[in-house]
Amino acid sequence: MSTTKFSADEPALDRFYADLAEADLQPLWTQHGLLTPEPVPRTLPYRWRAAELKALGERAGALVPVDRGGDRRVLACANPGLGGAPYVSSTLWAAVQYLGPHEVAPAHRHTPAALRFVLEGEGVWTLVDGDPIAMSAGDLVLTPSWTFHEHHNPGDASMMWLDVLDLPVVHALEAVFFEIGPSATADRRTDAVSESERRFGSGPGLRPTLLDGPLPDHSPLLAYRWADTDRGLRSALEVSKTGAAELRYTDPVRGRDVLPTMRCEITRVAEGAATDSSRQTGSRVLTVLHGRGRIEIGDRLFDVEPGDIAVVPSWSPWRIHADRELDVFTTSDAPVLEALGLFRRSS
Amino acid sequence: MSTTKFSADEPALDRFYADLAEADLQPLWTQHGLLTPEPVPRTLPYRWRAAELKALGERAGALVPVDRGGDRRVLACANPGLGGAPYVSSTLWAAVQYLGPHEVAPAHRHTPAALRFVLEGEGVWTLVDGDPIAMSAGDLVLTPSWTFHEHHNPGDASMMWLDVLDLPVVHALEAVFFEIGPSATADRRTDAVSESERRFGSGPGLRPTLLDGPLPDHSPLLAYRWADTDRGLRSALEVSKTGAAELRYTDPVRGRDVLPTMRCEITRVAEGAATDSSRQTGSRVLTVLHGRGRIEIGDRLFDVEPGDIAVVPSWSPWRIHADRELDVFTTSDAPVLEALGLFRRSS
Amino acid sequence: MSTTKFSADEPALDRFYADLAEADLQPLWTQHGLLTPEPVPRTLPYRWRAAELKALGERAGALVPVDRGGDRRVLACANPGLGGAPYVSSTLWAAVQYLGPHEVAPAHRHTPAALRFVLEGEGVWTLVDGDPIAMSAGDLVLTPSWTFHEHHNPGDASMMWLDVLDLPVVHALEAVFFEIGPSATADRRTDAVSESERRFGSGPGLRPTLLDGPLPDHSPLLAYRWADTDRGLRSALEVSKTGAAELRYTDPVRGRDVLPTMRCEITRVAEGAATDSSRQTGSRVLTVLHGRGRIEIGDRLFDVEPGDIAVVPSWSPWRIHADRELDVFTTSDAPVLEALGLFRRSS
Amino acid sequence: MSTTKFSADEPALDRFYADLAEADLQPLWTQHGLLTPEPVPRTLPYRWRAAELKALGERAGALVPVDRGGDRRVLACANPGLGGAPYVSSTLWAAVQYLGPHEVAPAHRHTPAALRFVLEGEGVWTLVDGDPIAMSAGDLVLTPSWTFHEHHNPGDASMMWLDVLDLPVVHALEAVFFEIGPSATADRRTDAVSESERRFGSGPGLRPTLLDGPLPDHSPLLAYRWADTDRGLRSALEVSKTGAAELRYTDPVRGRDVLPTMRCEITRVAEGAATDSSRQTGSRVLTVLHGRGRIEIGDRLFDVEPGDIAVVPSWSPWRIHADRELDVFTTSDAPVLEALGLFRRSS
Repeated sequence: MSTTKFSADEPALDRFYADLAEADLQPLWTQHGLLTPEPVPRTLPYRWRAAELKALGERAGALVPVDRGGDRRVLACANPGLGGAPYVSSTLWAAVQYLGPHEVAPAHRHTPAALRFVLEGEGVWTLVDGDPIAMSAGDLVLTPSWTFHEHHNPGDASMMWLDVLDLPVVHALEAVFFEIGPSATADRRTDAVSESERRFGSGPGLRPTLLDGPLPDHSPLLAYRWADTDRGLRSALEVSKTGAAELRYTDPVRGRDVLPTMRCEITRVAEGAATDSSRQTGSRVLTVLHGRGRIEIGDRLFDVEPGDIAVVPSWSPWRIHADRELDVFTTSDAPVLEALGLFRRSS
Repeated sequence: MSTTKFSADEPALDRFYADLAEADLQPLWTQHGLLTPEPVPRTLPYRWRAAELKALGERAGALVPVDRGGDRRVLACANPGLGGAPYVSSTLWAAVQYLGPHEVAPAHRHTPAALRFVLEGEGVWTLVDGDPIAMSAGDLVLTPSWTFHEHHNPGDASMMWLDVLDLPVVHALEAVFFEIGPSATADRRTDAVSESERRFGSGPGLRPTLLDGPLPDHSPLLAYRWADTDRGLRSALEVSKTGAAELRYTDPVRGRDVLPTMRCEITRVAEGAATDSSRQTGSRVLTVLHGRGRIEIGDRLFDVEPGDIAVVPSWSPWRIHADRELDVFTTSDAPVLEALGLFRRSS
Repeated sequence: MSTTKFSADEPALDRFYADLAEADLQPLWTQHGLLTPEPVPRTLPYRWRAAELKALGERAGALVPVDRGGDRRVLACANPGLGGAPYVSSTLWAAVQYLGPHEVAPAHRHTPAALRFVLEGEGVWTLVDGDPIAMSAGDLVLTPSWTFHEHHNPGDASMMWLDVLDLPVVHALEAVFFEIGPSATADRRTDAVSESERRFGSGPGLRPTLLDGPLPDHSPLLAYRWADTDRGLRSALEVSKTGAAELRYTDPVRGRDVLPTMRCEITRVAEGAATDSSRQTGSRVLTVLHGRGRIEIGDRLFDVEPGDIAVVPSWSPWRIHADRELDVFTTSDAPVLEALGLFRRSS
Repeated sequence: MSTTKFSADEPALDRFYADLAEADLQPLWTQHGLLTPEPVPRTLPYRWRAAELKALGERAGALVPVDRGGDRRVLACANPGLGGAPYVSSTLWAAVQYLGPHEVAPAHRHTPAALRFVLEGEGVWTLVDGDPIAMSAGDLVLTPSWTFHEHHNPGDASMMWLDVLDLPVVHALEAVFFEIGPSATADRRTDAVSESERRFGSGPGLRPTLLDGPLPDHSPLLAYRWADTDRGLRSALEVSKTGAAELRYTDPVRGRDVLPTMRCEITRVAEGAATDSSRQTGSRVLTVLHGRGRIEIGDRLFDVEPGDIAVVPSWSPWRIHADRELDVFTTSDAPVLEALGLFRRSS
């Protein structure tokens, strides 16, 4: 809404404004930028380089211990548009987490939900409410809202992965709760197959007849394995007419998004092909698993290679060009926008 | 409700009853058996023997041609309690279908939904709205309501499978529609992987981001492969405390039953173990895929071996005893009972 | 599917058919009428006359006592197409129930759901699980599946109303349960406003913030009052372009049909106007509350006046012509057909 | 999570932190206040006085014109905890809007949803997508997301009402869209009954059989009239054991909250009685329609009278004490919290 010039008695207006301020009131007609024709995101299109993330992760590993007294060894992407907040976008947190050989990140839980996407390596376990989930490159692992989670690395190699959280949303809603894990002793189980996968991961459309009580708000399947994803992408690309194919990770029992606040998708673009440009309300963080190419976001163009992280602001058009077959994992806040009747998408 | 003795004027009552009949009315108080304390099913517990089904199927193959002028070569289980109706229970149709080498069962569609469960062999394709689905032992293949379906056998061996339909229900609701296929020429495609599986069969919880329009009433995945089912049963049995495990086949996108009218489940019972006895409203037809054992239904006890078909009437307790590890596939009308608020189960 | 002539060896075929019968099997190819191009309902279009119903109801009142040893004093419409079954259609039961001055129909419950629509008079109470619901002309009162219900008439005038039940469906599904009420003593409460209305009947879209536990399968509002219905019909007719308006009775909390098995609707047709002809799968029973006109059902045309009952078979086109402004209450099995993916409607 | 003291090489750590900042990364372990044991709302408990709101509204009416060049004449409650933002809480906007005699607030629409609750007077119409809705004391009127809305006052008296919007949420999600109305000419219809009420406001559970296309995300009923609400409160209070009763305004067709982002409720507390103390995640704004009493919020106690506005921060306990029978209308963001799996409530 545009500003208005009043031909009113200016001193009276000034007194009036002062009285309003005194009464903790503000006139709507002096507010600017509240109601804009289109979203004007503070989030900027941006890209973080894998090489830099890796080098800094390793320095963190050398300099900063991980133990119960401390915290996760996490480097958060701080979008330059957000005035110093440690958020990749107005609604998402994205970070790399580094766990050295034989280290343990002890159990805690919080209402912000998290997911882990492994870009490289293997050999770390994440325990979710005690269920041990092995992590390998290309796997998506969920640690949903208010589930206890801990990570341990029984091997001799360090490992880094991408964390995405809905923290900015939960913070804006003033709904953050946090709790230290129930036990001081880390659980170092290294089962090859988690209970969650045993129950819900057998195959498409198969589930136990009897569920142990009501299902949680989130997907009861906590790990989506790269072998399945890769096979799905291959099938989908075979029948694609554009050289690009996209899959969505969903709750295998109810078909909803994996988490009430975050949507996970993965796109494969064949060498030389590109996705169509599109934009939607809400933001998206993406990372490259394999391949090489360029990602257009708004008026920026970023070269990308495996391990790079980039962010698409709300309502900004974006597309992917593959120079070598590209696999791009993305997380968006689309379930939030959809639930509130605020989701829009256009090509 | 029990009968009543009236001390009324009997001749007046007789005249009254005659006048009611003349007016197409019936007094409730002379009706018996309408409202019983518990279900009194006409369906009887029963078992059909694999050897007999096979021998008769082969005689049908030799005696009765399959072509457009004719019909499916199908032998329907006729429950002896149902007065000659070709139904396995009051709500389900079960039959064996026999297709000889190089034969074709041409396309048609009908509002009754059908499913096929393959007990032995391989090499037949079922096309569902043109999508070619290979059939092998242990596979479940859906031909949902009002989808065109046809079967063809390009090989040199005959094949038999179990058909289950909701025909009695659709008939009772006076909602049967039927249509001959759109083309006189059979479609003889023999793709190894169906379009349906390519799109919805990659893995648990993975689906195309973009769906081609709204999903149908039934599962968009039309084939559930034995390899997945077997792996799921193995996992489930490993964590079972009773020696028995049961999986449900579901719509991979919405987690509902595969069809709005029929629930498919499979139970594995370890050698020497047994399921708990339970009963529920609505009927169930079952068939043995592997193993050997006994099935108790009401006060009957049936020895079973692979290929046998049996039926559990409404509200009849039943259980499975395995002499050798048993895999039992079952179909029930539970989704109908649940949708109408009439489902009850007790152990 | 049409019959087939086989050029097969006839004696072998005869032996084969005999062996099939012996094995409780039936060949599909000799079945006729199982799969028809369109529904071929056994239910016939029919109409019962108010005057006759009333006269016979009164004779029943004089001849047949209502007490715990007996039953409801109910005269069921027996569709002449259904071979003597006491059903108005293949899926619905319709009847008139007569309760004399100071009589009581004691409490019982059953899985078939019932509804009462009052055509004339007032002064009877129906108690549903103890909640006393006053009944007056034009009111719809629900006695859902497995709720205890009893009727009592504290006044000096007899009363008759229409009962509609889903009994044929529940019977076909072999899911009938029945139980005598918990107390031998009738509850003779005559509260002006029921608990159900107090909680859910204040106005459109208003409900208690706190519900006492989960809602039942059916509407928590058990009475729909004529004053509201009349006002709604008036509004709807004012904005109608065709001179006809139809309202649906729904669960005020979830917007679903009032019962999982039956849909209730009411149509007002202005003098001289008519509804469009339409047909749908499943059957419908209707009764006239006010007015005078004609109802076309299939190739039949019935004059109607207040209190008449008529039935529309599955897939039969029907329409209403009003000679004087007509209010027609209808109940159909549409929720059953919809839940099972079998609902079709065409104009 | 508590801070950590590292025994690390401090200069190296300083260089590392500088390099992180340079790379737009932030270490998690130096963040404080991100993950708190319980919500630590910036929103403060607060109350705005009716007398002051009214006096300032009238001064605004005298000083600031309302026309297309300008804007709504709206005074927004600015919570003192929010650093000058014009929001009543972290998630809600609350304001009084003043419309003088014969004034018009022209049509526009925006993705933030709004509702109007009339505290006094009558005689203004709000048009929602052209449907004219009369406004009177005690009425709730919805202007949902992206519906065109305009207000006009054909009478000689000014009128003020409460506006509540989800603007802070939509702004945080970077999903604000805004559009000027389609016509420069104001629509000055003054129909007594809106189209929305004609269709969906007849009575509890009655709706048109035929809907014109799919229902919107919000309630199709746009006005909830005081007469219905008052009757509902009276019924509810009669059966209340605590002297307090609360009703929720809901979508009459689907029973959901009236808007995807805001829950509206009204509480009546009998003279001398009080509500139980409770708290929940998310914030709530409330206003007093009738009566007199005190509202406890956290450790604050506010005297209230008709027209006062107050705010309850996230997770702050609150309760109402009535000195004279109190009617308190409240709006919360509970549907947002519930949709995202973040709703918690405790007493």
